[in-house]
Amino acid sequence: MISREDRLKELGYELSEAPTPLGSYMPCVQTDNLLFLSGMLPLRCGKLIRTGKVGESVSIEEAQEDARQAVINALSVLKSYLGSLNRVARCIKLNGYVASGQTFTDQPKVLNAASDLLLEIFGEQGRHARAAVGVSVLPLNSPVEIDFIFETTQL
Amino acid sequence: MISREDRLKELGYELSEAPTPLGSYMPCVQTDNLLFLSGMLPLRCGKLIRTGKVGESVSIEEAQEDARQAVINALSVLKSYLGSLNRVARCIKLNGYVASGQTFTDQPKVLNAASDLLLEIFGEQGRHARAAVGVSVLPLNSPVEIDFIFETTQL
Amino acid sequence: MISREDRLKELGYELSEAPTPLGSYMPCVQTDNLLFLSGMLPLRCGKLIRTGKVGESVSIEEAQEDARQAVINALSVLKSYLGSLNRVARCIKLNGYVASGQTFTDQPKVLNAASDLLLEIFGEQGRHARAAVGVSVLPLNSPVEIDFIFETTQL
Repeated sequence: MISREDRLKELGYELSEAPTPLGSYMPCVQTDNLLFLSGMLPLRCGKLIRTGKVGESVSIEEAQEDARQAVINALSVLKSYLGSLNRVARCIKLNGYVASGQTFTDQPKVLNAASDLLLEIFGEQGRHARAAVGVSVLPLNSPVEIDFIFETTQL
Repeated sequence: MISREDRLKELGYELSEAPTPLGSYMPCVQTDNLLFLSGMLPLRCGKLIRTGKVGESVSIEEAQEDARQAVINALSVLKSYLGSLNRVARCIKLNGYVASGQTFTDQPKVLNAASDLLLEIFGEQGRHARAAVGVSVLPLNSPVEIDFIFETTQL
Repeated sequence: MISREDRLKELGYELSEAPTPLGSYMPCVQTDNLLFLSGMLPLRCGKLIRTGKVGESVSIEEAQEDARQAVINALSVLKSYLGSLNRVARCIKLNGYVASGQTFTDQPKVLNAASDLLLEIFGEQGRHARAAVGVSVLPLNSPVEIDFIFETTQL
């Protein structure tokens, strides 16, 4: 069976250092076997891939790339916290916030890029519940922010 | 003791097919005895009851109807997942997102329609924590979106 | 060892009555040893400290005061529910909503005031995961709303 990290490489992604929180909080907190992750921005090497609102200066395709990067950052956090992605039992919930122009209503299409990537990496264990909302503006003028709840395997 | 589904009928509601997710995610994911539900829109027979923002083209009363429909859809998901509403131990948390005109600040009045309906159906087990926020725009231009955490009875 | 309530007093804060919910929901619901708190507004003696949007009529410093008040209100809820803050095992997650002017992107700076205060009171047990988003408008025209997940000690 192919490991999740090898699967990621096959898909052309690489985990990096877990992103540094923008303040006095933790990227991940565990309670029982639930892992609550902080809101992930589409940072790459410490910088947002782009800024702006979807439906204005940012296209759906660009926002989908942002959503995938937020997932990659979440997985970097999980790897750093758990030591290996193989200790992820499953993905439980994803809250996706899309900085949206006033008439942009395709938030689910943006978030599908995140959901699909989780399925590609984790298979059935990647299936999650999800809420997608449009907001007026996000930290650093990011187009997308996603927070996650994962379940870890019992030690 | 009257069943919760009979209580719903008494109140004039009927559960339908659980709404189809707008993408590659699940309507409900269970971890231990917690059920995380996806963001529910006021879909009826697969279509939004109405579109627009509360405080602009949508009135509070209309948005309250939308909030109740989101609850009905959540219960349809629970019935489909659990087999019966009698397996719901209680409602834990509700996050309500109201697509709001710039000066609309009565989000709690909109969400009270959802909270009150949960109380009518589940009694004390319907009492939940809640966050209500106003957002600029929601998927499909829906006026309301609600996600839920429920607790199920132990098998 | 100094109690958390004495620590609060040292810092110049005082717990008050837990704020009354703006509708038919509960300030706090427990499931297993998790406590889900409702969205807390910066109410003081039942009134918002101020209204408006951050980056427009409300400054960052004012919004930080609001964020700290939301924390104090959360602690008032916990004290009322648990009897003592000493029964808080830790803070797990904080979702911060900042009513933001269109170009305000410093939501994390606002929420850092809440995160820092939790650290000052609870030490390592105050470290939490966090999501910070900007929204168009909040209940009662509040500049800030925060909801929380805490963990309680086992009885």
